[in-house]
Amino acid sequence: MVLRALRAAGESGRSPSLAELAAVTGLSRPTVEQVVESLLGAGYAAAAVNGDGTRAPRVGRPARRFRFRAEAGHLLGVEIGALRVAVLVSDLAGRRVGSAVRTATARTPAAERLALVEGAARAALMASGVARDSVRAVGVGSPGIMAADGSVRLCAALPGWTGLALGERLRAALGAPVVVENDANVAAVGERWRGTAVGCDDVVMVLAGLSPGAGSLIGGRVHRGYGGAAGEIGALHLLGRGATPESLLSTDGRPLAALDEAAVGRVFERARGGEALAGAAVERYVERLTHDVTALVLALDPELVVVGGWASGLDGVVEPLARELSRYCLRTPRVAASALGAEAIAWGALRMALDRVEAEMFAVHPPGGPAECGVRPE
Amino acid sequence: MVLRALRAAGESGRSPSLAELAAVTGLSRPTVEQVVESLLGAGYAAAAVNGDGTRAPRVGRPARRFRFRAEAGHLLGVEIGALRVAVLVSDLAGRRVGSAVRTATARTPAAERLALVEGAARAALMASGVARDSVRAVGVGSPGIMAADGSVRLCAALPGWTGLALGERLRAALGAPVVVENDANVAAVGERWRGTAVGCDDVVMVLAGLSPGAGSLIGGRVHRGYGGAAGEIGALHLLGRGATPESLLSTDGRPLAALDEAAVGRVFERARGGEALAGAAVERYVERLTHDVTALVLALDPELVVVGGWASGLDGVVEPLARELSRYCLRTPRVAASALGAEAIAWGALRMALDRVEAEMFAVHPPGGPAECGVRPE
Repeated sequence: MVLRALRAAGESGRSPSLAELAAVTGLSRPTVEQVVESLLGAGYAAAAVNGDGTRAPRVGRPARRFRFRAEAGHLLGVEIGALRVAVLVSDLAGRRVGSAVRTATARTPAAERLALVEGAARAALMASGVARDSVRAVGVGSPGIMAADGSVRLCAALPGWTGLALGERLRAALGAPVVVENDANVAAVGERWRGTAVGCDDVVMVLAGLSPGAGSLIGGRVHRGYGGAAGEIGALHLLGRGATPESLLSTDGRPLAALDEAAVGRVFERARGGEALAGAAVERYVERLTHDVTALVLALDPELVVVGGWASGLDGVVEPLARELSRYCLRTPRVAASALGAEAIAWGALRMALDRVEAEMFAVHPPGGPAECGVRPE
Repeated sequence: MVLRALRAAGESGRSPSLAELAAVTGLSRPTVEQVVESLLGAGYAAAAVNGDGTRAPRVGRPARRFRFRAEAGHLLGVEIGALRVAVLVSDLAGRRVGSAVRTATARTPAAERLALVEGAARAALMASGVARDSVRAVGVGSPGIMAADGSVRLCAALPGWTGLALGERLRAALGAPVVVENDANVAAVGERWRGTAVGCDDVVMVLAGLSPGAGSLIGGRVHRGYGGAAGEIGALHLLGRGATPESLLSTDGRPLAALDEAAVGRVFERARGGEALAGAAVERYVERLTHDVTALVLALDPELVVVGGWASGLDGVVEPLARELSRYCLRTPRVAASALGAEAIAWGALRMALDRVEAEMFAVHPPGGPAECGVRPE
């Protein structure tokens, strides 16, 4: 309670005194003092250099003030995609302190892709001046079905990914606990944390583009399904017209190259420029997307559908998608474009790492403080 | 705890003594004695006429033995459908003591349909010798989207149903608390209670037939969605080939009459008899059903798909559906036909009524016992 109060005060720029912490938490002053001493010892709290509380100290010795040491540890949020790997670094308050991106190809072998992650993580830490042993947890968003032990149960999108002990490999490489989750699921978490889904508990997140996937939150929690495959909608098009996004978006009769999201962006751009063939291609693509999303919406009845993914030009998708959905749904959800864009997955992954650390940080610890936090095997 | 122990003992045919109840619950004998006295007073327990415990009484006065009075109250489970209304009566142990069915048509007006429910309930109670004031709660499964207050938010299947204060009307008519839920959702609950989904927490229940609907359990609980519309898959076919079940099942170019489930049964029967046109019609219908179910399965990733509904002949659907699903799903769920058949909805509704009564019965009550149980406005 004291730690939460300290951190909440820090978010609004205040450094509370012991008396204020006692008032906020409802604990006795001696108890608060004891806890704060233990937090000081564990490094989660520090004496504030300047008393910057809102109330001026009374006469006599100014009250000691304290702050949450957000710099006491750091987190990594990792996006692993077919075409790129991205890493975000934050402090314990979830504030961004650095990032790095590495490009890949759809053919990059697994070992090489893992090395890209490690390289991006090192670069992001170095650029932000964060020591490697300050990393308390790593969150990872990856395509595919993830097992509870952090291995990849099934992944068609990345070569060598099925069966990979992803969590274990990255824990060994990065020296911190690793939480692994499906990319669309973590994107939903990211958008709910600090994107367009803030305040929404029932969310469908669609990663549009050429390898469509979806994630969902039900009651604010990730819905994985019985076998972790919930939202793996890649096969939906087989049921409809059987056409792939690559062929739907073609303007010359030849399908786009697999996973060439840049080509998707170009078709969208030409459509916006008024080119008829591109306009028709985008229309076909939106119809297909509507099909996929409607199926999800009819099954789940979310409050909000967030459309994201790497394809640029998605801003042209939201309005027709919302219009089409209202034709098919008994209750039509709100539709919004991702606010975090390409960073939704990395932010969501980072949020899951923070969840893990907070669960430990805010756990009730035996006297001696939360010394067992930090690196610990999964 | 004592009440649960009494009821559990009753399910295996035993009437425990105070000492046995104390041993099972871990409570002291004086406490158990006090609770049992209060349960005797409230009518939930009775002295067992014959000591039928497994251990013979020791020398001296035989120990008093007690049993759960399952007859202390009763429950109704109500199915409201386009073509029929059905009522099940059970005691507090969930044992069936009576039932009644009334036929309707797709055009039956709302007031008349409500009167059918009331008539069926009276008939079922009378046939089972249960007094009306013994009914502790009523569960109702109805097509459409139900609001939290028991009114119908939206229902396309039954005339006059949208906006109807269904729970309130039935509470007034039947004199007991009423729990209202979507029919496919309660069917899932019923199948999990005593049907083909026993032991499964993640279930998709498909009511096939001419007005398809679906319900789902996630983690053992009904998934209603943000606006109660989850599983309203009736519009899915608009996305695919645009064909209705009535036209898919036609063998003469003219669609079947709307909601004529008997005609569906006849087509299935002719197909089983080897008639080519009927076989082709069933094939088209199964393909459409596969489409709907696949969309649900990809979105939710359930452990089990239960296929039910009023259409006879559904036994011919399970095997091809399971085969088709495995083509599209990264993780294929088990597929099974409903074990409760036409009674799945009424049993599920009854289970929801029992849940409500148990929540009150097993709540920790102030001294004086659970006297406030029973009829109480919603």
